[in-house]
Amino acid sequence: MTSSHDLPESVPDTGPTELENILAGSAAAAGPLCDSDSSSRARALRGIADALDAAAGELVELAMAETSLPRQRLIGEVARTTGQLRMFADGLDEGSWLDIIIDTARPDSTPPRPDLRRIQRAVGPVLVFTASNFPFAFSVAGGDVASALAAGCPVVVKVHPGHPQTSIRTGEVVSRALVEAGMPAGCFALVHGQDAGVTVLRDPRIAAASFTGSEAGGRALFDIANTRKAPIHFFAEMGSLNPVFVSPQALAARGDSIATGYVASFLLGLGQFCTKPGLLFLPRGHGLTDQLTDAVQAVAPGRLLMDRIQDGHRAGRDALAARPGVRTLVRGDLDDATAGGSLLATDVATLASDQPDLLTECFGPTSIVVEYADVDEALAAARLFPGCLTATVHAEAGEDFGRQLADELSGRAGRLVWNGWPTGVTVSWAMHHGGPYPATTSPEHTSVGITAIRRFLRPVCYQDCPQELLPDVLRDANNSGIPRRIDGNLSTDHITRADSVPT
Amino acid sequence: MTSSHDLPESVPDTGPTELENILAGSAAAAGPLCDSDSSSRARALRGIADALDAAAGELVELAMAETSLPRQRLIGEVARTTGQLRMFADGLDEGSWLDIIIDTARPDSTPPRPDLRRIQRAVGPVLVFTASNFPFAFSVAGGDVASALAAGCPVVVKVHPGHPQTSIRTGEVVSRALVEAGMPAGCFALVHGQDAGVTVLRDPRIAAASFTGSEAGGRALFDIANTRKAPIHFFAEMGSLNPVFVSPQALAARGDSIATGYVASFLLGLGQFCTKPGLLFLPRGHGLTDQLTDAVQAVAPGRLLMDRIQDGHRAGRDALAARPGVRTLVRGDLDDATAGGSLLATDVATLASDQPDLLTECFGPTSIVVEYADVDEALAAARLFPGCLTATVHAEAGEDFGRQLADELSGRAGRLVWNGWPTGVTVSWAMHHGGPYPATTSPEHTSVGITAIRRFLRPVCYQDCPQELLPDVLRDANNSGIPRRIDGNLSTDHITRADSVPT
Repeated sequence: MTSSHDLPESVPDTGPTELENILAGSAAAAGPLCDSDSSSRARALRGIADALDAAAGELVELAMAETSLPRQRLIGEVARTTGQLRMFADGLDEGSWLDIIIDTARPDSTPPRPDLRRIQRAVGPVLVFTASNFPFAFSVAGGDVASALAAGCPVVVKVHPGHPQTSIRTGEVVSRALVEAGMPAGCFALVHGQDAGVTVLRDPRIAAASFTGSEAGGRALFDIANTRKAPIHFFAEMGSLNPVFVSPQALAARGDSIATGYVASFLLGLGQFCTKPGLLFLPRGHGLTDQLTDAVQAVAPGRLLMDRIQDGHRAGRDALAARPGVRTLVRGDLDDATAGGSLLATDVATLASDQPDLLTECFGPTSIVVEYADVDEALAAARLFPGCLTATVHAEAGEDFGRQLADELSGRAGRLVWNGWPTGVTVSWAMHHGGPYPATTSPEHTSVGITAIRRFLRPVCYQDCPQELLPDVLRDANNSGIPRRIDGNLSTDHITRADSVPT
Repeated sequence: MTSSHDLPESVPDTGPTELENILAGSAAAAGPLCDSDSSSRARALRGIADALDAAAGELVELAMAETSLPRQRLIGEVARTTGQLRMFADGLDEGSWLDIIIDTARPDSTPPRPDLRRIQRAVGPVLVFTASNFPFAFSVAGGDVASALAAGCPVVVKVHPGHPQTSIRTGEVVSRALVEAGMPAGCFALVHGQDAGVTVLRDPRIAAASFTGSEAGGRALFDIANTRKAPIHFFAEMGSLNPVFVSPQALAARGDSIATGYVASFLLGLGQFCTKPGLLFLPRGHGLTDQLTDAVQAVAPGRLLMDRIQDGHRAGRDALAARPGVRTLVRGDLDDATAGGSLLATDVATLASDQPDLLTECFGPTSIVVEYADVDEALAAARLFPGCLTATVHAEAGEDFGRQLADELSGRAGRLVWNGWPTGVTVSWAMHHGGPYPATTSPEHTSVGITAIRRFLRPVCYQDCPQELLPDVLRDANNSGIPRRIDGNLSTDHITRADSVPT
């Protein structure tokens, strides 16, 4: 393998003239893309997916060299990415994303009610900061880009320095597919460099931004977005501790598989997932230490995504290991090139008395086993957590432990996993990949799943507008079958009442 | 009339001990209120509405003394407020607000899909900053409070200093109704004083906040909310210019009624509405000047809501009138106690060359008539506007003017009014009272209408959870009729397939 960690330096930052061209193009594309037929955008998304599938071999090679991620993982990630693009296309065709609400006129009510017809429309150009750890699924053709394009928003992608060549090549594939689908010029562009990203974020032509990465990075950009003259939404998906709680009965019933599952989950992709379980809560005297230790030591060390992540993981692990009351069960080898899994151990009392240090995410192959004395102490531990993307409970049927922990954790996490593991985020209608701060900066929104499109839409309500000026799907005669709420009732019918047409 | 403007000083600021009690109570109520049955919250909202209707006579007297608003307006506003409470109760019963999405397990897919069930839940305690200009509908029992309680969030109300006695008495009525409905202690409280409001806003127990008022006030609080250690959503509904564009054909067809309607709309409530039309665009040589002038002069001066608003309006009007190229058609009398309507005039070239000064909201009885030369100049004027709550077009059927203006303005406003006037905001399913900054800080959300509840909810996704631990409405057997999206399809049916139940 070549020294992947030198590649990023070979891509120069985007200069001011090019940035201005990109921003002007993005602004010019906003109107046409917003007004474009959603079926044409669906076709464009499917076109991107097909083109990426066709280029998968080449893209995977590039990503292997840049990220050190293994081939099979990257092949799977391309499939996930193209599946995601097709899912948004299907969502566009289904039409619920338009959130159509129609209240027909009631001229005789007090006060008289006008005819009101509401629909969602694109907010305008979106800036997407891509992630280090998913060179496809959260990158140039990833979920943020797909959902913004689906919404009808031009996209400017701030390329992650961890995989610039993969990004550039992916960008070429996406651009060509958009042109072939007849999408407006300027609706998609890449920028390189931290300063370029900040310049774009500050530009008044940008209407929203999204981000996947560290809490420190996300917060800094969030602050910039909010201190603009006209602030914009900055949808950051950041850090998460993803605690896992195991009940005494679950331990007794299936301690072996829990130990195996935990280590497999926290060392999956060498711990470089935002859903990595950062803490495993076990009953005191759990007896799994040898098994956990063996399982961690059985996983081969590997190269992390970037030098920065390698360094950050080492510093994070060593800081956690050095806290009083923390024991090191496995001290993974961390040389300049590779990292092995580390496993630490402590108890709830130590955790409670040493915040925020012990409740700090360590991105990479390190996790902490925490012993609790009883259910009350486990519940007290659950209450220590800030917002998380996920929380997991392992318990047996009928145990109070499960119900109590689930109640507590559902108030702190976006996804509650039962007798499973948080890594592996399904891309579907119901998925919610979000949570209270610091998991995200916008807890009502998800960055995975069809509803991710909602981040880039805002409603417009037409009052007493003539039928011919309304978007097709708001007209009385519309028979598209798109769900509409009419006078309070969800329906797929057209409107027949004569009094619904204002003069 | 007594000197209403002295009353506010008689209410002391809420002190630190009481603030701490309120915040602790609010935090303690968050869990029980979130977990409460939505039908019980619907009953509580109806109970509040009934109690307010019963106390309307007393409340209207208090509000008349404090706000100088006329009796009939206040009687109507109480009715609007109680109607709004009942609307949220109906919305709770209907159930779509839960936004239920269920993806049943597909263990044989690649990768295997777990059972995922998503529901909306309350975000936690909400701080509501009430408005000066609606002592009922945007105050202690107004839409923000109703929607937050509907969502299951405890509410802390920062009372507006313009109507403290009305607020205190309303608060007593609300509190008693909540107790009688069995709602948890601590779920509702009032605080007084700017510093107290800021203290509550900074407190980590507060999960979201809303605001209706000026851009300066809203932005200052927005900045505080975003610079917290854990930032929260601050839903501010702020300033809006609400432009109105009149086409040449509309002028020819019904210039008289347009002149009358415009003056009635901008002087309604002495211009103290966030939807007041701030600028009327007429074709050059419109010939309506005498008629507009007469109509403005025919409206009697009156007392504005507060000294602060009286002073602010005078300063704002005089600043607009003093700009080069601005003529004063009517200079309304502004003594210490009352204000009359003022009408200014200019043209698009002046407007375009004098921003932001001429595009600054003047809250109160002042508006500007702007002459345009042709459709292109009208369109250019439309492009000058920042985000607005509303924009209005008067045009005749088939005119290009209407379509072009509507397209341009729908990109800048939350509500597009056709051949009508923006004042008078219908409370219904389809209403959208929002818009891009500076109209609001959260353009995808409304502060009026049933969907206002969405501001105070966030999703939780249950992965592979046993049926008995799921909220009732997520269970297979649920037959409540609440709409649910199951495997991508909207449905009101229960789930029958055996494979949907994870083990």
